[in-house]
Amino acid sequence: MYSFKNDYSEGAHPNILKALVDKNLEQQIGYGEDIYCSLAKDLLRQKMNHSAAAVFFVSGGTQANLLVIASLLRTHEAVISAKTGHIYANETGAIEATGHRVIPVETRDGKLLPSDIELVLQQYAMRPHVVKPKMVYISNSTEIGTLYRKEDLEQLSAYCNSRELYLFLDGARLGHALTAEGNNLTLSDVSRLTDVFYIGGTKNGALMGEAIVFNKPDLASEFDYILKQRGALLAKGRLLGIQFVELFKDDLYFSLARRANEMATKIGSAIKANGYPFLTPSTTNQIFPILPKAYIDILSQKYDFFVWKVVDEHQSAIRLITSWATEESQVDEFIKDLNNL
Amino acid sequence: MYSFKNDYSEGAHPNILKALVDKNLEQQIGYGEDIYCSLAKDLLRQKMNHSAAAVFFVSGGTQANLLVIASLLRTHEAVISAKTGHIYANETGAIEATGHRVIPVETRDGKLLPSDIELVLQQYAMRPHVVKPKMVYISNSTEIGTLYRKEDLEQLSAYCNSRELYLFLDGARLGHALTAEGNNLTLSDVSRLTDVFYIGGTKNGALMGEAIVFNKPDLASEFDYILKQRGALLAKGRLLGIQFVELFKDDLYFSLARRANEMATKIGSAIKANGYPFLTPSTTNQIFPILPKAYIDILSQKYDFFVWKVVDEHQSAIRLITSWATEESQVDEFIKDLNNL
Amino acid sequence: MYSFKNDYSEGAHPNILKALVDKNLEQQIGYGEDIYCSLAKDLLRQKMNHSAAAVFFVSGGTQANLLVIASLLRTHEAVISAKTGHIYANETGAIEATGHRVIPVETRDGKLLPSDIELVLQQYAMRPHVVKPKMVYISNSTEIGTLYRKEDLEQLSAYCNSRELYLFLDGARLGHALTAEGNNLTLSDVSRLTDVFYIGGTKNGALMGEAIVFNKPDLASEFDYILKQRGALLAKGRLLGIQFVELFKDDLYFSLARRANEMATKIGSAIKANGYPFLTPSTTNQIFPILPKAYIDILSQKYDFFVWKVVDEHQSAIRLITSWATEESQVDEFIKDLNNL
Amino acid sequence: MYSFKNDYSEGAHPNILKALVDKNLEQQIGYGEDIYCSLAKDLLRQKMNHSAAAVFFVSGGTQANLLVIASLLRTHEAVISAKTGHIYANETGAIEATGHRVIPVETRDGKLLPSDIELVLQQYAMRPHVVKPKMVYISNSTEIGTLYRKEDLEQLSAYCNSRELYLFLDGARLGHALTAEGNNLTLSDVSRLTDVFYIGGTKNGALMGEAIVFNKPDLASEFDYILKQRGALLAKGRLLGIQFVELFKDDLYFSLARRANEMATKIGSAIKANGYPFLTPSTTNQIFPILPKAYIDILSQKYDFFVWKVVDEHQSAIRLITSWATEESQVDEFIKDLNNL
Repeated sequence: MYSFKNDYSEGAHPNILKALVDKNLEQQIGYGEDIYCSLAKDLLRQKMNHSAAAVFFVSGGTQANLLVIASLLRTHEAVISAKTGHIYANETGAIEATGHRVIPVETRDGKLLPSDIELVLQQYAMRPHVVKPKMVYISNSTEIGTLYRKEDLEQLSAYCNSRELYLFLDGARLGHALTAEGNNLTLSDVSRLTDVFYIGGTKNGALMGEAIVFNKPDLASEFDYILKQRGALLAKGRLLGIQFVELFKDDLYFSLARRANEMATKIGSAIKANGYPFLTPSTTNQIFPILPKAYIDILSQKYDFFVWKVVDEHQSAIRLITSWATEESQVDEFIKDLNNL
Repeated sequence: MYSFKNDYSEGAHPNILKALVDKNLEQQIGYGEDIYCSLAKDLLRQKMNHSAAAVFFVSGGTQANLLVIASLLRTHEAVISAKTGHIYANETGAIEATGHRVIPVETRDGKLLPSDIELVLQQYAMRPHVVKPKMVYISNSTEIGTLYRKEDLEQLSAYCNSRELYLFLDGARLGHALTAEGNNLTLSDVSRLTDVFYIGGTKNGALMGEAIVFNKPDLASEFDYILKQRGALLAKGRLLGIQFVELFKDDLYFSLARRANEMATKIGSAIKANGYPFLTPSTTNQIFPILPKAYIDILSQKYDFFVWKVVDEHQSAIRLITSWATEESQVDEFIKDLNNL
Repeated sequence: MYSFKNDYSEGAHPNILKALVDKNLEQQIGYGEDIYCSLAKDLLRQKMNHSAAAVFFVSGGTQANLLVIASLLRTHEAVISAKTGHIYANETGAIEATGHRVIPVETRDGKLLPSDIELVLQQYAMRPHVVKPKMVYISNSTEIGTLYRKEDLEQLSAYCNSRELYLFLDGARLGHALTAEGNNLTLSDVSRLTDVFYIGGTKNGALMGEAIVFNKPDLASEFDYILKQRGALLAKGRLLGIQFVELFKDDLYFSLARRANEMATKIGSAIKANGYPFLTPSTTNQIFPILPKAYIDILSQKYDFFVWKVVDEHQSAIRLITSWATEESQVDEFIKDLNNL
Repeated sequence: MYSFKNDYSEGAHPNILKALVDKNLEQQIGYGEDIYCSLAKDLLRQKMNHSAAAVFFVSGGTQANLLVIASLLRTHEAVISAKTGHIYANETGAIEATGHRVIPVETRDGKLLPSDIELVLQQYAMRPHVVKPKMVYISNSTEIGTLYRKEDLEQLSAYCNSRELYLFLDGARLGHALTAEGNNLTLSDVSRLTDVFYIGGTKNGALMGEAIVFNKPDLASEFDYILKQRGALLAKGRLLGIQFVELFKDDLYFSLARRANEMATKIGSAIKANGYPFLTPSTTNQIFPILPKAYIDILSQKYDFFVWKVVDEHQSAIRLITSWATEESQVDEFIKDLNNL
């Protein structure tokens, strides 16, 4: 069995493990005050062209989401998310557990438009009998593989500014977004157009780790307390710093993501060539082809993947995910098996 | 500068890094469902001689504490802790942030006695105008280096049972406790005498990681939800499983802790030989000698440590911590410098 | 201007004020331990034919909802509600502020069916990445004036039992439901078919006050703590007890509700006679006729009411509410004005 | 049995009930937007000589405390209170349930001094491992009957300003404080020297009700949301407005409190004349005489009161509370019985 089930089936890129071994017995200060965290922050600020950005490293995406949202919202404020958004669909009420409603919005492709937000504001107008929408949460790439283009993000950013809403971008798969075919955003654009975002390491080469970036550093002036309070401050913070130094010092982060996308695209092209449709268009490392159920059963015997959605009696959409570690030989094998169906 | 400031200044024991490298490209299921987590749980259950115990791996001590407490207490229930207890003294209100009061108890040596708890129950009798004390939180070894002996824990356990209080033991430094001179507890005793406890990896050889053990598995029947909700479920759960396999397969965990204790004892003996007193008696890896301020200043130029408490105009207690990674040559150097004062 | 805007524009039924005056200088124990609370509880248990029910009095509906839900749900559990349900639409995230998601369900008429719940359970199956639905919240009469009939509630109750879901009924307008044309439920049925419900006083003759009833008294064994903790325990609890004695000792509660319904029905019949449709069918004290906007403007000059929903360019639905205190002469006047349009 | 157990054993001052009856059938807008709430706010702003103060009416003291604290503190911030403070001693963890630690301070007389706060700040210095103290909570009169004098409050206020701490005064018994012998504070002083405080109605003539006053109105700009979210917004807000109009339009509030104090003083003088000591000095409506246990037993047969604290084998302190409604004939009777012992 080979798994296309997710992008966290393997460990870390070997460079990272090598660095952990090399620096293992150096004494470093705890709680993220070590020199590797410091180096990694400088590197990220430089890459995003924003020298004042406040950067914090945490262990995972759900943790990053709940920390950011709990720290920025007041008790009566809420966050708007696509229904497919990770905070609404996959985090066991992590945001509600910090006291805030997640307002779900039905979307076609996992992306939020200013008009979606405007509608929410109209529905939540009857102060004080409703929560106050105060933040917009988006993911790039989205949970269903789609992308925000630069013009999308510019419009959303301008709209959020005009309505005094925070714009928060979940970048669990930001690398995959920024290296996908059709993308025209840069890391610097993301930093310029959002209030806060994070750069996902877990799904792109790290053992674990996300870099939260507050583009308006005032918003983060007491974020260190929140990290500790929610159990997110690692004693050996070096573990995160070292990984992000490795991921960014030679743009490894981007080359790993690009490779993951290429593997998915290779599979996707073969599927297209066989005439099968897709649930959503995707140029990132997640694709959602719609296949006959009988063929899904056959492929399941050799490959592990998620059956995403029943389309009709005869067909379902499956989710195939590739990563930096996906072996091209397995991709080729999968394509061969598919062509043989 | 050599640091005796804490027991998380270095990375992981080399066996752990080697195992991470060896298994790095194996595909494993995410979220702790991998074979290494499974192996590690079996190993722990065997070591504690309790085949039905429910085991979960998380990243750190504050996280472990808030997860356990938030999962077991109802909204109006509270936890009792020594004033020096980590949840009261060092966790930025993590427990209160989950909605529960931590009831502080002044102690002489960081340990709670049944009579301490009894007094709290008397003070919190005026239902429903007060919270309901429902859990007792203890640390072993304590935050000030002291130990619970078997008879201590047996009395506390019997008392808690008789008053329907959960007994929760924070084992961030459990290895150091169980291998200290004067200890008569085993891992199996700890499992038998508490409702829930955890085995700290971060301070004893791991990159990060604590193993939470529910000795009454019914208490954990829905703990998986809580892990995810509080951002504690690592996508690459293997990272924790692999480490605990390494720590326990050859009792490395205990030999590392024993060595840490020996280094502290070596320093402590030299201090005693020089005639200095200690703030608290300790046979574990944390010692609190009381030294003349002038000498503290001199030692500070070469060694990093924490000045714990001003004792009087001329003396302060300092905290010296050793770990599995402490170099004996540095210990010897420190002793030489001390003897020269 | 005469107001049909809501059912809490006036004070209390004169019997209640008279009782408050009569008993004013009697000394009573505080915090709901007075004899009037005791009498009122006995009276309610007798009326609902359930001598073991646990009864508590609180000040308002949002308070009742958040108390019940916070006390029954564990941290990872969620409550299912119609999108029009008060806890989802009108309570400023009160439930989320206690840490729980409210799962919204789109409905045709404000009522939940077993099939709606079943669908939610399917959508929330991917444990532990989603919250655990554990409670179903319904309102009777609903926020849009519709009714649960006995067969509806029996089916829902059986379904909830089979899936181990609590069934909680918000009875802010329970009196209006139980006295409406077409109703076949009794107070005893409601008690038998739900786990917990409340009997709304605020909208039916009281100054304020709702009686929360736990039909399974075990569920309420520590509810007194929750009342105090959430600021819901009145020092002068007699204020609530006296009111519920007056409301129930001669079935005033039902006669007041019946009268409110009759006034709404009288207006509704006139509207029907004029050929206007309704947004939802209602035999309770809230009706939602759809009128030409020009007529709405004219009526607005003399009457206060809520414009509920724009239907199209020319028509909107308005909400007219009557209460025990609505003057029939004003109802007649409104009908005359309507007929003249 | 006559009760000196508390100051909420009776209903409301007759003027209040009369006003409720008089205005009962007037239609008023709900949720505190009625003309009586508006009138009462104007009246209070005038009495406290602060035309910009933001005023809100709620049902009780615990509710007022949790609303104010939850609205002003960020998630990692804490409130400092005397150990005898109501939020620490008597509210079932209401503040912790909103996520915040209450830091207890041992005091001699229930009052906090700048030096107490300074010590807390020193103990909570190790950012980010500790909560951030951000608010000081005091009660006047205190829970043990003592008073803040003007110079006390001026010093505390200056200190809090200098350390950017909010100063919040719980005025559940503010009337009794401001009319007590030895008091030199006015309502205007309290408004000038605190950030937020409340004026207690429940214990001084109202059926229920506290008026929360934000002296810096910016702090309250979104407090309406919080009121609704925590279940504190009464549908018939008029109930609170009407009562505060009655209490303040002719300074009834002060004359009622003065009378309550006089009754306590009368009893206290008799006790002093008999040579018994007091636990704390008090000129307010709560006194804590220390009496022989045998005499306490005799008095208990005819009077209801609280045995506050065991002093030694032979003596206990009891708490006697008087109110606006205490009958002087009963006071005289008590004194006679005491003198006869």
